[in-house]
Amino acid sequence: MASVSAHPDVMEKLVSLAKRRGFVFQSSEIYGGTGSVWDYGPLGVELKKNVKDRWWHAMVRARDDIEGLDAAILMHPRVWEASGHVATFTDPLVDCTNCKRRFRADDPAIKGTPGTPDAQCPVCGSKGTLSEPRMFNLMFKTFMGPVEDSAAVVYLRPETAQGIYVNFLNVQQSTRQKVPFGIAQIGKAFRNEITPGNFIFRTREFEQMEMQFFVDPEAKAPAKTDMEWFEYWKEQRMRWHLALGLRPERLQFHQHEKEELAHYARAAFDVQFDFGGSLGFQEIEGVHHRGDFDLSRHQQYSNKKLEYFDQPNNRRFVPYVVETSAGADRTTLAVLVNAYREEEVPGESEGRTVLGLSPALAPIKAGVFPLVKKDGMPEMAERVANDLRRAFTVFYDDGGAIGRRYRRQDEVGTPFGVTIDGQSTQDGTVTVRDRDTLQQVRVAADQLRGYIAERIGQPE
Amino acid sequence: MASVSAHPDVMEKLVSLAKRRGFVFQSSEIYGGTGSVWDYGPLGVELKKNVKDRWWHAMVRARDDIEGLDAAILMHPRVWEASGHVATFTDPLVDCTNCKRRFRADDPAIKGTPGTPDAQCPVCGSKGTLSEPRMFNLMFKTFMGPVEDSAAVVYLRPETAQGIYVNFLNVQQSTRQKVPFGIAQIGKAFRNEITPGNFIFRTREFEQMEMQFFVDPEAKAPAKTDMEWFEYWKEQRMRWHLALGLRPERLQFHQHEKEELAHYARAAFDVQFDFGGSLGFQEIEGVHHRGDFDLSRHQQYSNKKLEYFDQPNNRRFVPYVVETSAGADRTTLAVLVNAYREEEVPGESEGRTVLGLSPALAPIKAGVFPLVKKDGMPEMAERVANDLRRAFTVFYDDGGAIGRRYRRQDEVGTPFGVTIDGQSTQDGTVTVRDRDTLQQVRVAADQLRGYIAERIGQPE
Repeated sequence: MASVSAHPDVMEKLVSLAKRRGFVFQSSEIYGGTGSVWDYGPLGVELKKNVKDRWWHAMVRARDDIEGLDAAILMHPRVWEASGHVATFTDPLVDCTNCKRRFRADDPAIKGTPGTPDAQCPVCGSKGTLSEPRMFNLMFKTFMGPVEDSAAVVYLRPETAQGIYVNFLNVQQSTRQKVPFGIAQIGKAFRNEITPGNFIFRTREFEQMEMQFFVDPEAKAPAKTDMEWFEYWKEQRMRWHLALGLRPERLQFHQHEKEELAHYARAAFDVQFDFGGSLGFQEIEGVHHRGDFDLSRHQQYSNKKLEYFDQPNNRRFVPYVVETSAGADRTTLAVLVNAYREEEVPGESEGRTVLGLSPALAPIKAGVFPLVKKDGMPEMAERVANDLRRAFTVFYDDGGAIGRRYRRQDEVGTPFGVTIDGQSTQDGTVTVRDRDTLQQVRVAADQLRGYIAERIGQPE
Repeated sequence: MASVSAHPDVMEKLVSLAKRRGFVFQSSEIYGGTGSVWDYGPLGVELKKNVKDRWWHAMVRARDDIEGLDAAILMHPRVWEASGHVATFTDPLVDCTNCKRRFRADDPAIKGTPGTPDAQCPVCGSKGTLSEPRMFNLMFKTFMGPVEDSAAVVYLRPETAQGIYVNFLNVQQSTRQKVPFGIAQIGKAFRNEITPGNFIFRTREFEQMEMQFFVDPEAKAPAKTDMEWFEYWKEQRMRWHLALGLRPERLQFHQHEKEELAHYARAAFDVQFDFGGSLGFQEIEGVHHRGDFDLSRHQQYSNKKLEYFDQPNNRRFVPYVVETSAGADRTTLAVLVNAYREEEVPGESEGRTVLGLSPALAPIKAGVFPLVKKDGMPEMAERVANDLRRAFTVFYDDGGAIGRRYRRQDEVGTPFGVTIDGQSTQDGTVTVRDRDTLQQVRVAADQLRGYIAERIGQPE
């Protein structure tokens, strides 16, 4: 899939901005970092929470045919036998018998075919020391209870979906939902990736936003068929990403070809985003028609029926599943890459860096600035900030030239800059600067909360 | 601490209601369950999210002196050496050399002193077969990367607090906060408890809501001193629990006595809630003055300075920390126990079960019911439900007698029941039934969203 993008590679600049301004820090940085694990700082946690809350609202709260769930990370180990993860969730690795290092078998640095006398270790340079590829499971293993033996092995879930499948009947029966309906979940998952990378794009600890939609395999018009539901969800999910503000030219569908499809899958499309540079278009969400594979496997491994009872037709069946599986971290990264721009400012010698985040996603909705630290301006500015803070995230800044304070907020995507100046203390108005157009309007301080609420599209 | 409560034990009824109505399911139930791990169902995930969102709003968004953070679960292993968890986060266990079972050394079922010839195994009954107590670490251990050796060992964090300490300077510098200020985080933590139990009260996987407040050890009036901040947070946190609707008589402070205090701690109080029955008053939050222990230890183990630079006074110091550490699951359980009641209904033969949740916490804000399935009532009811759903969680129910539908919503804490009856289709009004007073008022359908918003105290 890799193809050089027409968009520039801004990743390095973004990583630097993310650390400097508190979006994302390297985990355990003072100890030299933890391999490809990241912490969300004050602005990052707000941005990611806004992304997740929008998903939750669109997928759960605003619909009557999807129920929420929050299943645990630690599940019964048989779950991963049923799902196929114990047997097949593996990567081929080779060992160097000389330097004891381990590599992915398809590492391009390896010269020759591992397991043959010609193969050369890419680190120590020994020839003929690379083992034949062995399969390595990507699940993190731990032990529950006081004894570290095989009976105590549990795994950190490598995906949230299985928590939904095993709870299918619990949810259906407690909510009295009728097929077709869905179950949605946001939560952490863990994969012991050998080659993580690209900042928060591929990490060992990550967060998923998954929805499994259960449909009648035999549904006929006027009801939607399974393939019609698949098309519906494909379009819905693309629309959701567009509504985040991701630019249409940076989004595309990628259809899985026959050879890419899992044996049970009936159709699969990825939503891809163009991250720019050599990373290019990459998956941020998958929409998969999984047939009845998952529920059938859990029936088989648990010896419990996972059938839906269709009362009007007095008929039992195992539903088909259409899955939408988005990465919360990847989507957050896409939002950042999409928003990053450097530009010249008319009439000014210095340019500026802007995160053109949609106001609804911006971690800070308004910066509040007293023009100078005297003449009652700080007092009024604090009153304004406190009033706004009842409804929005606000950053109060009284340090440095006003132009510099605007720039600091531009760089983190704050859509509105509210300045309290000499006129403000006279007539009770403030100026509101728009991050993108740079235009300023005067608004009465007591109307400000409503004014910003309307422009953000958020309740006061 | 255990003392029998004056409040009845409702836990068993609550566990049953929680499963039946979709608050909490046993994890991996179809596989026989996972030891003391639970999944939140459709209503539970909403209730817990409401608890967490209120905490986040009160502790982060509504304040200018606390920053949010979302640090990873997997941290560098040295973190847990610095924190003391590797050395001391342990439970004493004994083994039976005959039946190979393992017990907590203080298990009351053990007869005699383990390690002596008199001790008798509580399961197989052998005498003299119990080993001397050995310390067992409560952290879940896993391996990062492809090799399962000691160099690859990492732990699932047993608390979120350390993610805050190691990011202290990253957060302070990126936000330009000045001491005193705090860092807040919500996230999962894991403890390999030997004796978990009491439903979601003590589990191996749980969620914390922690805030670490950094203060100047030498602060003097008019600034608040460290002990004054400690008192401030103690009161603030109690107020927050009261604002959830927890009844004052079920809440108390428990002061840690000298012998309960960690050696570095300067003061510690727990907020306790009375769960009723034999469980009685138990900790749901801790407010601890931790001195400079944590930051100093991380300085020592990482060889990185974690000092704050006090610019006006040209002085560097390691701040003191006042910690507030609440359990999201425990608080959710407290909210459920507090809300559960069974009562008679005047003029009716059958009583009812009610969750008297505060409207802001209730997972469903309104039930919408067409009185009968004809005469245009279902169509109007669906319009009403769709309108409300833009702002609130709504449950639409057209099944069974109206009294039964009210009862179903009472049992899950829905504060408002909206019925569309014969008059509704004539004059555009609906009835709104109050869960607690059972009183009904007629409200114009087009005013309904505003009416409920106001009574919930939530924006439309």
